[in-house]
Amino acid sequence: MAFSDKTLQVFLDEVASAEPAPGGGSVAALSGALGASLVAMVCRLTIGKKGYEAVSAEMQTILPRAEALQRELRDLMQADTDAYARVMDAYKLPKQTDAEKAARTRAIQNALKHASDIPLRVAELCAQVLELARPVAEKGNKNAASDGGVGALMAEAGLRGAAFNVSINLGAINDEAFVREHRARVQQLLADAEQRKNEIMKIVESRL
Amino acid sequence: MAFSDKTLQVFLDEVASAEPAPGGGSVAALSGALGASLVAMVCRLTIGKKGYEAVSAEMQTILPRAEALQRELRDLMQADTDAYARVMDAYKLPKQTDAEKAARTRAIQNALKHASDIPLRVAELCAQVLELARPVAEKGNKNAASDGGVGALMAEAGLRGAAFNVSINLGAINDEAFVREHRARVQQLLADAEQRKNEIMKIVESRL
Repeated sequence: MAFSDKTLQVFLDEVASAEPAPGGGSVAALSGALGASLVAMVCRLTIGKKGYEAVSAEMQTILPRAEALQRELRDLMQADTDAYARVMDAYKLPKQTDAEKAARTRAIQNALKHASDIPLRVAELCAQVLELARPVAEKGNKNAASDGGVGALMAEAGLRGAAFNVSINLGAINDEAFVREHRARVQQLLADAEQRKNEIMKIVESRL
Repeated sequence: MAFSDKTLQVFLDEVASAEPAPGGGSVAALSGALGASLVAMVCRLTIGKKGYEAVSAEMQTILPRAEALQRELRDLMQADTDAYARVMDAYKLPKQTDAEKAARTRAIQNALKHASDIPLRVAELCAQVLELARPVAEKGNKNAASDGGVGALMAEAGLRGAAFNVSINLGAINDEAFVREHRARVQQLLADAEQRKNEIMKIVESRL
């Protein structure tokens, strides 16, 4: 059963259980999806409302993008847990002969690369949610300014959480070019997100 | 139906809908509950594990506290949405006669106080999750250090989101002592959370 078809209580309890997955990686993706949902809500509370005629067209373009981000981030909750399982499976491969050892190492390295690509994708999408949260918090329905603010907080927390999960996996990857490139991308995303979040917080506080 | 009995997809879609609630207030409470679940998971992955004998007793005391925080924050998701409905209902009361006007004003003021007490409680509980996340991220199973880190991120985002929701309601409350006291409490919680989160981020990065 996909996570999105489980109840909130079941998901909260699965996270809290002694199984390592779902864990921080899936929660980070959910955080981004919640942020995208809040951005979509503020768009809906703005489009066609009196006093917001000038920004309705912009909110109309943001709404479907936020909804698409919600769906992709929701699917990445599952992908993150599956990627973790693939790494665990690779470690369980036989390692008696040299051929087995080589095949196992290749499988582990490939699984680790996949397991760092998934949270990197989560981080990229959370950055996009944060990008949409800015005009929404700034020009969207004033009564929902705090919702845009919470959307930005969820997106930023999701991005930072996903970045942790990229880093863990990079630590065990031998391909130096892959590691270097992923680390640089994560650093850039973190720096941009920090700045953007702080700007949005100021905007929201001024509108409360 | 309680939010916790709804599927994640239904909740994500209800947030994204044009109904103002559930919105940022309920999402903030969920964020704290997710943080508490991650703290509980790291406790479970630490208790009784080889190499963690010295911290097992501490994790044993943290685990039930994290689980209780998860449950209370989960219930506050619903309480926040209900509190919003009560404010909306109060605004709809009749206001023809002077007696009606006075009764309506009283009802609105009481509903607004309740609607700021709920997110203040969410913020207080998120602060407690953050407090538990620190020893968990520092001394818990190293393989789950990032999960403790994501737990802290979710708790801090929940606290900040709840603080926005306290502020909105305070803006319309006439009782100056109530407003002053709540504002001071929120400022203190925000300042403490910022510092604690930064400390936890450094700890997690050093253990990845």
